[in-house]
Amino acid sequence: MPDSTTQEQIYPLLDGIETPHDLRRLRPDQLPELCEEIRRFMLSTLSVIPGHLGANLGAVEITVAMHYVFDTPEDRIVWDVGHQAYVHKILTGRRRDFHTLRTWGGLAGFPIPSESEYDTFAAGHASNSISAALGMAVATALKDESRRVVAFIGDGAMSGGMAFEGLNNASSCPNNLLIILNDNNMSIDKNVGGLNRHMVNLLTNPTYNSMRYDMYRMLRKLNIVHEDQHKDLQRFNNRIKALLSGQTNFFDSFSIRYLGPTDGHDVVHLVQILQDIRDMKGPRLLHISTMKGKGYAPAEKEPTIWHAPGKFDPKTGERISSTSATPQPPKFQDVFGETLVELADMDERIVSVTPAMPTGCSMTYMMEKYPKRSFDVGIAEEHAVTFSSGMAAEGFIPVCNIYSTFMQRAYDQLIHDVALTDSHVVFCLDRAGLVGEDGATHQGAFDIAYLRTIPGMAVCSPYDEIQLRHLMYSACFDWSGPIAIRYPRGAGSVVDWKQPMEHYPFAKARVLREGSSLAVLSLGPIGVSAARVVERLQAEGHSVAHIDLVFAKPLDEECLRKLFASVPNLLVIEEGCLSGGVGSAILQLAMEAGYKGRIKTLGLPDEFISHGTPAEQKRYCGLDEDSIYDAAKALLGTKVEG
Amino acid sequence: MPDSTTQEQIYPLLDGIETPHDLRRLRPDQLPELCEEIRRFMLSTLSVIPGHLGANLGAVEITVAMHYVFDTPEDRIVWDVGHQAYVHKILTGRRRDFHTLRTWGGLAGFPIPSESEYDTFAAGHASNSISAALGMAVATALKDESRRVVAFIGDGAMSGGMAFEGLNNASSCPNNLLIILNDNNMSIDKNVGGLNRHMVNLLTNPTYNSMRYDMYRMLRKLNIVHEDQHKDLQRFNNRIKALLSGQTNFFDSFSIRYLGPTDGHDVVHLVQILQDIRDMKGPRLLHISTMKGKGYAPAEKEPTIWHAPGKFDPKTGERISSTSATPQPPKFQDVFGETLVELADMDERIVSVTPAMPTGCSMTYMMEKYPKRSFDVGIAEEHAVTFSSGMAAEGFIPVCNIYSTFMQRAYDQLIHDVALTDSHVVFCLDRAGLVGEDGATHQGAFDIAYLRTIPGMAVCSPYDEIQLRHLMYSACFDWSGPIAIRYPRGAGSVVDWKQPMEHYPFAKARVLREGSSLAVLSLGPIGVSAARVVERLQAEGHSVAHIDLVFAKPLDEECLRKLFASVPNLLVIEEGCLSGGVGSAILQLAMEAGYKGRIKTLGLPDEFISHGTPAEQKRYCGLDEDSIYDAAKALLGTKVEG
Repeated sequence: MPDSTTQEQIYPLLDGIETPHDLRRLRPDQLPELCEEIRRFMLSTLSVIPGHLGANLGAVEITVAMHYVFDTPEDRIVWDVGHQAYVHKILTGRRRDFHTLRTWGGLAGFPIPSESEYDTFAAGHASNSISAALGMAVATALKDESRRVVAFIGDGAMSGGMAFEGLNNASSCPNNLLIILNDNNMSIDKNVGGLNRHMVNLLTNPTYNSMRYDMYRMLRKLNIVHEDQHKDLQRFNNRIKALLSGQTNFFDSFSIRYLGPTDGHDVVHLVQILQDIRDMKGPRLLHISTMKGKGYAPAEKEPTIWHAPGKFDPKTGERISSTSATPQPPKFQDVFGETLVELADMDERIVSVTPAMPTGCSMTYMMEKYPKRSFDVGIAEEHAVTFSSGMAAEGFIPVCNIYSTFMQRAYDQLIHDVALTDSHVVFCLDRAGLVGEDGATHQGAFDIAYLRTIPGMAVCSPYDEIQLRHLMYSACFDWSGPIAIRYPRGAGSVVDWKQPMEHYPFAKARVLREGSSLAVLSLGPIGVSAARVVERLQAEGHSVAHIDLVFAKPLDEECLRKLFASVPNLLVIEEGCLSGGVGSAILQLAMEAGYKGRIKTLGLPDEFISHGTPAEQKRYCGLDEDSIYDAAKALLGTKVEG
Repeated sequence: MPDSTTQEQIYPLLDGIETPHDLRRLRPDQLPELCEEIRRFMLSTLSVIPGHLGANLGAVEITVAMHYVFDTPEDRIVWDVGHQAYVHKILTGRRRDFHTLRTWGGLAGFPIPSESEYDTFAAGHASNSISAALGMAVATALKDESRRVVAFIGDGAMSGGMAFEGLNNASSCPNNLLIILNDNNMSIDKNVGGLNRHMVNLLTNPTYNSMRYDMYRMLRKLNIVHEDQHKDLQRFNNRIKALLSGQTNFFDSFSIRYLGPTDGHDVVHLVQILQDIRDMKGPRLLHISTMKGKGYAPAEKEPTIWHAPGKFDPKTGERISSTSATPQPPKFQDVFGETLVELADMDERIVSVTPAMPTGCSMTYMMEKYPKRSFDVGIAEEHAVTFSSGMAAEGFIPVCNIYSTFMQRAYDQLIHDVALTDSHVVFCLDRAGLVGEDGATHQGAFDIAYLRTIPGMAVCSPYDEIQLRHLMYSACFDWSGPIAIRYPRGAGSVVDWKQPMEHYPFAKARVLREGSSLAVLSLGPIGVSAARVVERLQAEGHSVAHIDLVFAKPLDEECLRKLFASVPNLLVIEEGCLSGGVGSAILQLAMEAGYKGRIKTLGLPDEFISHGTPAEQKRYCGLDEDSIYDAAKALLGTKVEG
């Protein structure tokens, strides 16, 4: 429990705030002190409970100001991504449980409506807030209610196409949506794209204020513009500003009133501004400038590292890593990152693409060595996929890394822009399967199923780090067409992983062990657990085969047909949803083959799996070793219930 | 064959053009005459071979100019959507086969790389061209080649988020991409959104040209701007123009050089402009203004009707409808459209949302009667889904209509923004299953599979028009959570369809006929074919049950378990991909139940199905009556091969 009795842990104002109603009883001049307490509380808690630190330190003032000015929960705040909503959670009745953050049964790391009435909409995947909030704002206008709706979106999320679709529709029907653009000039990694540069310029132009009124007066004398109502004046001023700053204003193109930019860390001023604009009519956008990690020197200095730093000593800023005396297996992402560089060394046709996740997927290694051949396109999964296919059309071999859960955004592009033309793009899906603390929004649950629907798409998953290297190598140089390689978050099982890369045969399974009573068929690293179960069953005297499927599509039909002809029980294990997964594919093949034995499929159930450790999630889903063992025993021993 | 020997059908210039190399031998002053011939040829052909007329009439001059100025196929033209690429096909060796357009084995209605080296990338789904072309342009720059790359995109497609992602990345790495924005101020229906208004204003401001240089000089005197190199001057002029026209320039926000707007029907001038800008460095956008249906009076007057008019008399402009003496069943889309109005009459919480398809899905009926409760959001599927969920969060009952193939764009939104919060949105997926002439890019092949992966998503399909009404009614008022109702393109089977709406029980199948040797389980309107097969088998003396599944998810487990216990052969039929479809779901249930009978599943094979009539496509996929009959007979008679 972070709340100890030291001097430092006293929160005179924060202790009095159970809900935003309590917050609104404070005087505005007390808010800076409250913000300081909140920062201290977060540092104290997040130093022992790992979470998203940097973004939340940057959002303290604006969150306090929003709940102070808006009548939440009657007024709606819609968070985008939502990993920056910790202050919101602390102010809305969840401070006492804050130490349970991101743990099994505890608070979620993102806003979720099932947790609180203050959490108005699902958050986790970027760029959805404007569309959702616009729906609410239009609904409110249709019902002639006075509820206010705020979409709170970071500049990183603004690069997602969906945010653009929302902006483009914001002025198309009556509503009073307020968009707050929280601009800290980065997503998780450095922000990219033309729009980002545009926003930076808006922020960094100091001279326009003094000039715009003079300019305006001059133009009026020339009779080029006419003074009109306030709205037009505001717009005109924006245009003058754009002209003088060498910038046009992006948001004005959408008939959205642009306000700002303003300092996002001056809470008193923020409150004034929000009060001023709270009841303005029509869609409008307030552009605030914040700093990731604000108020904590180490995090201000290195925002990417302090995005989610793990445990640390808040006094010294030293990050506490659980280093072990014995060498540990590496993270799959690092095996990917280092192997990618080796592939790029071998062949200059290798290029890499990622939407805003170079650090998370370790594409940073290649970016450092081959910056011109590495493309971080920002939060833009659809573009990442089709851009890769465009490069493939000109003879390059793009390796496109997207987390499994985010690849859902590019499902159509995989079909239409890649598979339809049999384009040779190697997709690496990091964070496939159960992801742990990020929870329901981020589970890599569906990729095997949605990828398998796509004609011509090969889908494979490595058993361990060494096989990941073989698969990447073979996918780039031996195989053709679109290929997806999925692997999980975190570490694998092999310490001495840097073995020479080998050619792996396309669509081939590996027989790890022969056996006649039962065959365990596993896909990917869950096979390591399966192997231990097989070991145990063998020790008990059962004859159990173990097949590492390697490919979810195409299936190794020769291998499977041999099993159908010889083994009476099959147990298929995958860390993906059962519906449409590799288990269902094997069932279809077995049906065609007239297989008369029994097949049991293990995988993720048809529900959203909450946050917790991967081990807790596996247990819940029946994918831990004990559950696999029980399923195998049930096939070997008693009749399966029907 | 359209080429008859009448005076009108003589094409002196066009006859000499086999490829763009021939085109480039003409003098520029011959191009207007060529354009006239192309228009005449298209009208002549498309009056008997139905296709996309309006957009192609509008793209004659720019297509001729592009192939005249650019060295295709070495230079790349990437089409967006591509239904406006007929002139491109005519000029690139496919004129002789043009009469086979959109027929089985004939030319595709969209550019497809397998058809011609001039078709550089897949086209069909909107907004992908900038990303694809950028990939090519960046690849070209990396290889230090001089190839030019052009993305040709309509203003309608510009509203898709993916186009924005492409624009946002266009200036982030070295490339010389040219984007041509073909602005006819509409997609298929009227274009919508803030950006569209912005572009209209850019087009309709007549005064800026005369003023901008004066303005520029004045500002220079005031020492506010300094003359710099050409590029900055160009930018500055754009800003002046934006200021004076009351508009900022959207594209400048992305550091993309904006050129235009210019008349897209003056082919000589277009050639000059393209020659001028062909070898400019850096990403740039040429904004041209065209008119859908240009040069054919009826199409100019009513562009939505003449988007794809079917057969017509080119002289009179009379559209030839295949009216029948006996009443015919209506199109499913019209049953949807009329039923939606009835639902909206009943309850003011009913609202409707569609991304740019109000005419295609017949939401126009509701738009006319309840304009404030109907939302055409433009080409923006992601926004459409999440906007709907936002409205549902405020108590409305959104009916969101998206074609099956386009819903692929919103797969993540269905998961993250709808299902995760169990949001009550009724999705109506028109064009589900085989769509006929639009071909591979537009098949509604995957929806059952990808929807079934989503926890909490109900998926159903009506047997006929009357059941569509029952399902819509029950989905809106009886059921909760997210529901998808899929139905095909075209007409159903019931003439007298306007029956009172009834409550339909959730997740219930209908037993249409009892039987003991075989059960045919069908989903949706393909059940009508199945019923005729069952009829035939009964007449032959077989005892055949027929189950209308109605729901692909959740399955009616009670009904299915009864069949498992009593019928030795099951034949499952769906008009969707086999992988992850309802057949695979029944297999999984059968495995769990320990079913010992045989199951055969019919559905779409694991490949992209080409254009043709739906009947031809069904035959190819083994979903026509004869194939269903054969499959049933195989189960009833001989052993299924294994």
